[in-house]
Amino acid sequence: MTSSSVTSIHSRDNAFVKDLRRLAQDSTAYRKQGRVWLEGDHLCRAALARGQRAAIAVYSESFWPQAQMEYAQAAPKTIVLADALWADISGLESPAHMGFVVELPQAPALQPGVATVVLDRLQDAGNVGSILRSASAFGFGQIAALKGTAALWAPKVLRAGMGAHFALRLVEGLALEDLDGLGVPLLATSSHEGEFLHRAALPWPCAWTLGHEGQGVSEALEARARQRIRIAQPGGEESLNVGAAAAICLHASAAARDLAQGT
Amino acid sequence: MTSSSVTSIHSRDNAFVKDLRRLAQDSTAYRKQGRVWLEGDHLCRAALARGQRAAIAVYSESFWPQAQMEYAQAAPKTIVLADALWADISGLESPAHMGFVVELPQAPALQPGVATVVLDRLQDAGNVGSILRSASAFGFGQIAALKGTAALWAPKVLRAGMGAHFALRLVEGLALEDLDGLGVPLLATSSHEGEFLHRAALPWPCAWTLGHEGQGVSEALEARARQRIRIAQPGGEESLNVGAAAAICLHASAAARDLAQGT
Repeated sequence: MTSSSVTSIHSRDNAFVKDLRRLAQDSTAYRKQGRVWLEGDHLCRAALARGQRAAIAVYSESFWPQAQMEYAQAAPKTIVLADALWADISGLESPAHMGFVVELPQAPALQPGVATVVLDRLQDAGNVGSILRSASAFGFGQIAALKGTAALWAPKVLRAGMGAHFALRLVEGLALEDLDGLGVPLLATSSHEGEFLHRAALPWPCAWTLGHEGQGVSEALEARARQRIRIAQPGGEESLNVGAAAAICLHASAAARDLAQGT
Repeated sequence: MTSSSVTSIHSRDNAFVKDLRRLAQDSTAYRKQGRVWLEGDHLCRAALARGQRAAIAVYSESFWPQAQMEYAQAAPKTIVLADALWADISGLESPAHMGFVVELPQAPALQPGVATVVLDRLQDAGNVGSILRSASAFGFGQIAALKGTAALWAPKVLRAGMGAHFALRLVEGLALEDLDGLGVPLLATSSHEGEFLHRAALPWPCAWTLGHEGQGVSEALEARARQRIRIAQPGGEESLNVGAAAAICLHASAAARDLAQGT
């Protein structure tokens, strides 16, 4: 099952190992290298299931025998790393020491008329990944990340996104004015103002905006929104986790759409 | 503003420092010590805002001058740690080097008739904390954690919970049979079966069950549920993040309750 392109590496100073270490540990290294690092069995399978192809498959030496059975021909190039090097690169305690290097898709432009999630300076990689996952689940096709948002293809975002990256159009580094091209109504989540989500009529397609973990959606962005929407919190908490708020809003759009179609 | 109970510590081998290091780094040390560690400004303020009292306030030497203004008399005992010791204890990059040691509440028994969230072997501290936060926001009063669930008072869960711990009744280490005492209908979240959430009539009070990140709710627990409920995912994803799923379900209960009252 092995092909002629299998390379074993034992040196920390190998150029590929250095690049891979940067990809795995530096959240914006993908921009320089033009490729991303998917680590672990679950994430790699999710990417394959969405038709994504690996450029390079990377396995630890001790995982390599199993990899030859489970991942035969997963990529045109295979690299087998000495176990000691693996520990040096990976931050995961995954039992399967494997990962794929994938070519970063060409940065797309915003597509008008598409149901979109706008990220306004979100900081936490876990939150961003979880929102991408919810967006994909609820039929949103595009993510518009404003400048100051965490890097969308960072390894931690990829892990939390669990493959959603490969089902979405991801546009980064946008200015506020770029959103004018969306052509769908902006809905701003607010903690204190606007209509309650569960009583609101929601347009489709739309663009939900989600704001910075501490500061929420900026005033300038809120001013561009057609509706401000808040989530009723009878328990009296002042702020949900933004990933939780996103899930609730995006689901509400999908539910409203389904109910409108069904009646 | 300083009181007579201020102690400075410079030694790594000091008994309090050793205990604090365990509390901060070992997710179950609170069970032995009978107290928990709240680290960082935001979390400590959230606990104070819910009427929680600190047993010991801990500050780094360099934060101490500011602490005397901002946290005067926050606790009967104050400990000032040499900056080098702080780095040794803390995993956070928070600018405010401060935290509270708080007495762990007596482990309560399950209270019947209360809206509850049942956690079935959830593993990820961030997910558990986010669910506690959503539970508190949406008017659930009690968390029932089955054996095998992440420790509820672990530092990472406390951070993600953002004070929700102090607004909830938290019961840990339960067996399946213990849930018989809840006296409210169990609703099981399911990824493939049951009624769609947005079309379901939801009872109140109820107990939502949320399952293990990989395996979901166990069959034995599902068998005890009155209803199985699933979240429509028109985008075709197979699994939402469990914190996202929880937020959607708990919000749906709160919304249904509000709509029933309003009409």
